[in-house]
Amino acid sequence: MKRVLIIHGPNLNLLGTREVRVYGQQPLAEIDRLIRETAQSLGLEVAICQSNHEGEIVERIHSALGDFDAIVINPAAYTHYSIAIRDAIAAVGLPTIEVHLSNVHAREEFRARSVTAPVCRGQISGFGPQVYALGLQAAKALLGEAE
Amino acid sequence: MKRVLIIHGPNLNLLGTREVRVYGQQPLAEIDRLIRETAQSLGLEVAICQSNHEGEIVERIHSALGDFDAIVINPAAYTHYSIAIRDAIAAVGLPTIEVHLSNVHAREEFRARSVTAPVCRGQISGFGPQVYALGLQAAKALLGEAE
Amino acid sequence: MKRVLIIHGPNLNLLGTREVRVYGQQPLAEIDRLIRETAQSLGLEVAICQSNHEGEIVERIHSALGDFDAIVINPAAYTHYSIAIRDAIAAVGLPTIEVHLSNVHAREEFRARSVTAPVCRGQISGFGPQVYALGLQAAKALLGEAE
Amino acid sequence: MKRVLIIHGPNLNLLGTREVRVYGQQPLAEIDRLIRETAQSLGLEVAICQSNHEGEIVERIHSALGDFDAIVINPAAYTHYSIAIRDAIAAVGLPTIEVHLSNVHAREEFRARSVTAPVCRGQISGFGPQVYALGLQAAKALLGEAE
Amino acid sequence: MKRVLIIHGPNLNLLGTREVRVYGQQPLAEIDRLIRETAQSLGLEVAICQSNHEGEIVERIHSALGDFDAIVINPAAYTHYSIAIRDAIAAVGLPTIEVHLSNVHAREEFRARSVTAPVCRGQISGFGPQVYALGLQAAKALLGEAE
Amino acid sequence: MKRVLIIHGPNLNLLGTREVRVYGQQPLAEIDRLIRETAQSLGLEVAICQSNHEGEIVERIHSALGDFDAIVINPAAYTHYSIAIRDAIAAVGLPTIEVHLSNVHAREEFRARSVTAPVCRGQISGFGPQVYALGLQAAKALLGEAE
Amino acid sequence: MKRVLIIHGPNLNLLGTREVRVYGQQPLAEIDRLIRETAQSLGLEVAICQSNHEGEIVERIHSALGDFDAIVINPAAYTHYSIAIRDAIAAVGLPTIEVHLSNVHAREEFRARSVTAPVCRGQISGFGPQVYALGLQAAKALLGEAE
Amino acid sequence: MKRVLIIHGPNLNLLGTREVRVYGQQPLAEIDRLIRETAQSLGLEVAICQSNHEGEIVERIHSALGDFDAIVINPAAYTHYSIAIRDAIAAVGLPTIEVHLSNVHAREEFRARSVTAPVCRGQISGFGPQVYALGLQAAKALLGEAE
Amino acid sequence: MKRVLIIHGPNLNLLGTREVRVYGQQPLAEIDRLIRETAQSLGLEVAICQSNHEGEIVERIHSALGDFDAIVINPAAYTHYSIAIRDAIAAVGLPTIEVHLSNVHAREEFRARSVTAPVCRGQISGFGPQVYALGLQAAKALLGEAE
Amino acid sequence: MKRVLIIHGPNLNLLGTREVRVYGQQPLAEIDRLIRETAQSLGLEVAICQSNHEGEIVERIHSALGDFDAIVINPAAYTHYSIAIRDAIAAVGLPTIEVHLSNVHAREEFRARSVTAPVCRGQISGFGPQVYALGLQAAKALLGEAE
Amino acid sequence: MKRVLIIHGPNLNLLGTREVRVYGQQPLAEIDRLIRETAQSLGLEVAICQSNHEGEIVERIHSALGDFDAIVINPAAYTHYSIAIRDAIAAVGLPTIEVHLSNVHAREEFRARSVTAPVCRGQISGFGPQVYALGLQAAKALLGEAE
Amino acid sequence: MKRVLIIHGPNLNLLGTREVRVYGQQPLAEIDRLIRETAQSLGLEVAICQSNHEGEIVERIHSALGDFDAIVINPAAYTHYSIAIRDAIAAVGLPTIEVHLSNVHAREEFRARSVTAPVCRGQISGFGPQVYALGLQAAKALLGEAE
Repeated sequence: MKRVLIIHGPNLNLLGTREVRVYGQQPLAEIDRLIRETAQSLGLEVAICQSNHEGEIVERIHSALGDFDAIVINPAAYTHYSIAIRDAIAAVGLPTIEVHLSNVHAREEFRARSVTAPVCRGQISGFGPQVYALGLQAAKALLGEAE
Repeated sequence: MKRVLIIHGPNLNLLGTREVRVYGQQPLAEIDRLIRETAQSLGLEVAICQSNHEGEIVERIHSALGDFDAIVINPAAYTHYSIAIRDAIAAVGLPTIEVHLSNVHAREEFRARSVTAPVCRGQISGFGPQVYALGLQAAKALLGEAE
Repeated sequence: MKRVLIIHGPNLNLLGTREVRVYGQQPLAEIDRLIRETAQSLGLEVAICQSNHEGEIVERIHSALGDFDAIVINPAAYTHYSIAIRDAIAAVGLPTIEVHLSNVHAREEFRARSVTAPVCRGQISGFGPQVYALGLQAAKALLGEAE
Repeated sequence: MKRVLIIHGPNLNLLGTREVRVYGQQPLAEIDRLIRETAQSLGLEVAICQSNHEGEIVERIHSALGDFDAIVINPAAYTHYSIAIRDAIAAVGLPTIEVHLSNVHAREEFRARSVTAPVCRGQISGFGPQVYALGLQAAKALLGEAE
Repeated sequence: MKRVLIIHGPNLNLLGTREVRVYGQQPLAEIDRLIRETAQSLGLEVAICQSNHEGEIVERIHSALGDFDAIVINPAAYTHYSIAIRDAIAAVGLPTIEVHLSNVHAREEFRARSVTAPVCRGQISGFGPQVYALGLQAAKALLGEAE
Repeated sequence: MKRVLIIHGPNLNLLGTREVRVYGQQPLAEIDRLIRETAQSLGLEVAICQSNHEGEIVERIHSALGDFDAIVINPAAYTHYSIAIRDAIAAVGLPTIEVHLSNVHAREEFRARSVTAPVCRGQISGFGPQVYALGLQAAKALLGEAE
Repeated sequence: MKRVLIIHGPNLNLLGTREVRVYGQQPLAEIDRLIRETAQSLGLEVAICQSNHEGEIVERIHSALGDFDAIVINPAAYTHYSIAIRDAIAAVGLPTIEVHLSNVHAREEFRARSVTAPVCRGQISGFGPQVYALGLQAAKALLGEAE
Repeated sequence: MKRVLIIHGPNLNLLGTREVRVYGQQPLAEIDRLIRETAQSLGLEVAICQSNHEGEIVERIHSALGDFDAIVINPAAYTHYSIAIRDAIAAVGLPTIEVHLSNVHAREEFRARSVTAPVCRGQISGFGPQVYALGLQAAKALLGEAE
Repeated sequence: MKRVLIIHGPNLNLLGTREVRVYGQQPLAEIDRLIRETAQSLGLEVAICQSNHEGEIVERIHSALGDFDAIVINPAAYTHYSIAIRDAIAAVGLPTIEVHLSNVHAREEFRARSVTAPVCRGQISGFGPQVYALGLQAAKALLGEAE
Repeated sequence: MKRVLIIHGPNLNLLGTREVRVYGQQPLAEIDRLIRETAQSLGLEVAICQSNHEGEIVERIHSALGDFDAIVINPAAYTHYSIAIRDAIAAVGLPTIEVHLSNVHAREEFRARSVTAPVCRGQISGFGPQVYALGLQAAKALLGEAE
Repeated sequence: MKRVLIIHGPNLNLLGTREVRVYGQQPLAEIDRLIRETAQSLGLEVAICQSNHEGEIVERIHSALGDFDAIVINPAAYTHYSIAIRDAIAAVGLPTIEVHLSNVHAREEFRARSVTAPVCRGQISGFGPQVYALGLQAAKALLGEAE
Repeated sequence: MKRVLIIHGPNLNLLGTREVRVYGQQPLAEIDRLIRETAQSLGLEVAICQSNHEGEIVERIHSALGDFDAIVINPAAYTHYSIAIRDAIAAVGLPTIEVHLSNVHAREEFRARSVTAPVCRGQISGFGPQVYALGLQAAKALLGEAE
């Protein structure tokens, strides 16, 4: 059974509490439930983590080596400047999928630019919590291909 | 039954013939089969069209008004400069999903910028033909939400 | 009697249907009636066309040579990137007036820049359907001058 | 009877004396006569002023509050940098129409950018003294609308 | 006998009629005669087409696959923004030569930038109708090389 | 007793009349009362002036030399382009504090840039009329330091 | 009694030790004493923390929810790139005041740009340790307003 | 006898009082004496004025028409943004010489850019009060030429 | 018999030795033979020189005055920054043709920009040694025209 | 005996495992052995640490104060945006040497820009693990100088 | 007697031959006569040289050390990019005056930027050959000052 | 025995004479002695040259082919614009090391950008004359590797 690591970036622990107009009303726990259900239905094993610390995210990506077959990551704010996370993804070399709850192209100018996307396999943005479900399906497709 | 219009932009009719390293080996007909199968499994009705003409794509979007509930569009090259297509999507107001076969963030600088994405609901890029399947699922989710 | 060609650019056929907050509530047919009435009262003959196709607009401009004395054009989205339309206007050399329903300076940054205006005689923007009436008066004044 | 304030910006007092190739041969007094005739024919009352001083223009705009229903302004050179005039127009909130004798898009790069236009209702440029007549008609249309 | 497709882009059908200072006095028909004579003397077969439509040019390039050995294209205005034509040239993969009647480096700033040239084999600009003759010779040399 | 000159820049005389959403509801007279009360409680003497004229503000700054120990200035629109005011502040050399009623970082891009702040001692923005009270306290602290 | 959280960003723990020309001679402990005294005199309760870790600052802001009524933050170096801190401030939604010891407009170009200020209520910079006292007063005023 | 108008721009009335490191120790009165002596020795008549008001400088330039044969102007801060002064110089059409006390290329980046110089005949900067003497000599040479 | 000067710029003396992937395998001597043969067949006289020194190239261009009717130059690296060579070409005023072995549009960004091309009659790039033959033919055409 | 602190930045713990084409085949432990041997041969004492956390690196630099005479740091990804690390280096004031395994000028555009280098004494890049040995020698030279 | 070195940059040897509209009709020899006469009348000794070679100009500046008291240089095209000449002027440290025959602000955009001016004492441009006479007078004034 | 060519760029012949604050007090002869001693101790043979001429440096690099195994170059001012030197280094293909006496990142903005570094193996800057010694060691390491 293929294993996928799900990484939630900074401030996502506050989901559902505030700014519901932008990010929707679901708390992270509910999103995690959706992720687990989708994974199960796709025959994937998942582990989920959240961190507000750039360094921790870097290390979480490192630790995926060997234990996971793919990564689905929402780098949130770090998307736009964390070359450290970009380098971690490139160094580890696992197929990685970048997801965003909101449509990054319809917000502030700086959100359209991703420093991490160029080293990912693809990017999915703008469909709320569904981006994680879609990300898992993309992961499944990529892993199938590679066999 | 919800209806989704699939629009393939310029040069996609050549898929599978050339530049397989970037766009993959599947001809458009196979991708269309994948789209139809996915639609069926999701309980969606689809119509598919391809055009190399900006004006035709604009008019195809116009004609979706009334007949379709959502649009999945791969504007291909037009993504990066067709304000006409952007304005068509905004004018029609249907939930629209932008998809790209390749990872636009990992190619020439100018491909990372989309003038159409800001008026779409979201964007999916980089997973080859799967982006259409993912786009249909996103459409299904968006249409479910709206009910 | 002087003849003026009126060209409506892409998406203007949808006027009155959608985005009424930006473009107003009048359908194109009503605007065309206003144009014809104004023309009549000014003693001008008008022909009106609309196209969503850049190439068609280019050719409509070409065909004005000989048949028309001036052009009033709303290039809509093409305003901001169609060097082809710019070159057509410059090549034909008829006095041309660019009009816009909305105030292009009060919207997205990119709408303030016109690639067609430098080869037109002037630009009128922001007064809704009245811009066509004002454009016809400007045309009348320009044609009077040239005599 | 609706009242419209006409404001001529810096250097316009020299009109007709010099640089006739760019600005035409009519002195300001003749343009003012044209303005008054047009106003009369449109059933509008006008007051006209000219100033080379940014601060005076700001205060002339302030003083329009209560006494006038609309403003037609040719900010001339100040168009391109006077945020003070922009803020005055925004603060007073009267429907304001920006006019330019020459086609600002066909001259130096910096003349295409207007810092005042975004807070005006529209802009008319490039038809010589006629821009004032067109501006009054636009004002009339806007004031009619608002009733 | 090698076959070369000649594509004239937008507005070139007006050649010789207007703007003779920039583009010279020869109508397109005369240029086509020059092209045919040069081709004959070089032992090349040519087909010539002109279009003002971006989409048509894209499709003309597609249709060259199989029927032609090389393309000589003057994308005119589309040179500066048509990523669709760029992608068509790249997709088809035939040796392609970009030509321009005028010296694009000696005109407006934006004409120095070509989005199509990076996927062509080379570019020739500034020698009037001779650029087509030179383009054919370049094509002949490239095709000779490839044997 | 230390003396502080308060300078209100252009359009601030309209405060409380319009755009209350951005600048608050208090007219300038009320703000001046707040300033005087704060000054009294801090043991500072104040003089207050307002001008819409860049040149007048420059000269008001000049005249502070000898008569005042510090300046609190809200250059309003001039903040963003008046190098003349910048040079006046630098020439006079009195400790100067720049204040803004609104948060300049949360409005149009160009409002985040101040050409006057680099020659001031500090900047306070975004707290409505309180910025003047805070400015006086900052002045008091700076003047105490300098003793 | 209203509660205000004071957050000192990276490197501020070194205050008073080095670079006294830029940041002044007072160690952080003395500044904290000033903060506490000011708070007491204003009838505010304060908690103070310092961190060099972006993630910790993000979480300190999160934890203010419920426990504090306002935040006074000196994001120091993070001011200029930490979108994570910006998003934390926006997510938590408490009135937040950005302060800087030095005048950020009078140093390197990059220090004039704040990515956090747009989501704060205001910014105070350049008066040394007094910026914290002024920040507390601004907080007091904002909290009074909101009642 | 040829007549030259000397215009000193904003803040130059403070010369010699402050910032002597940048602008030198001579008060404006001494510079004016130098100007008058130089003029006399060159057989030129001069009139000298100083203004901190952009509008006044514009009008002083206007009034030179007919009364003066050339202008020597130090636009000081206005050099870098006053398109109004630029337009005044261009409108009046007298040979105009721009001078600066300090070397504008060796100070802040923005001082190297002059919006007025393109419509002047030449520019002299960096030699302290001598720039006025050099400016008069340049004026003399230009006027001699024109005879 | 018309005379054409051929100038090879810096590093071209190394041709054929290294970087054959970019510049091809032919040493400069072979290219010179091709040039001479082409010239002969076209009835042109040629002189050929190569220099790595910007100043020498400038002087070689100067010395063409009187002795030559046209210049074919490959400025190589100097293309992108040598305003001295640009000014030499403009000063001498002979019809000049810029050639490049490789397609400058398909390499590093900075190679697409030519400071010399705007003062040349045209540019030919990307066909290897053939660009010299094509350049000679262009020269022949230009010289024929001028008669 | 002089003491030098060696700091390895983010992702360097993965050295030798992956991306060997860019960073070489040596694991960090081997590089550390090389560092220790070089230090010994130069008569320097070294301590070595690695961290993926920006805040930790900031604090490691702080803690060098008093304990170390110089720092050799490879900030890796943080080189390009960590103003926090820049400020830490500047605050601590120890002679600091920036090193990079790969040639930062020969990779992505953004890697050529270092925000930390301006406050270091120098930079060494591109020689693989040898940069640490060279960095120690540079440190030795700097420390010798300072005596 | 003070000694001044005059350096004419590239292409100035062609003066009077060509492009007389931009640079005037006087050949360099006549300008040199003007220079010598002016020097004599000012009691200065001059040596004059011209070079088209950047390296030679660098060395001519070096050789001025000890032999000359000031330099008047017209770097011509090198003005805009020769950091080598800039560094030579800075290294030698003699008072240096940059002159230009034409008004560099009224020509191509790139000519307004000087890389050499920041290390000169001042710049004189736009008065034709007179700029050398003015430059000598500026030199005389600077040398007088320094005594 | 491996041979290394040392190239000193423009103005370095003046070392020790002037601007000692930036470049240190050692004349070039002393630096050359240091280079020779270091080379000897490393078992390398060196040849040293200095030139102020771009073309000469290009040719010195060419001539290294066959005679030398590596190059250590300080291109000085040419670092920032000499594409000719860049192309020479790339053409010759010898391992090349760029060195700078001063820290190029701590000076004017333009000095941080190197056009030559991308084709070198690495860069060492900021340690004064020691950069040559370090450069030789880097060369030794690179040459050892290649065996």
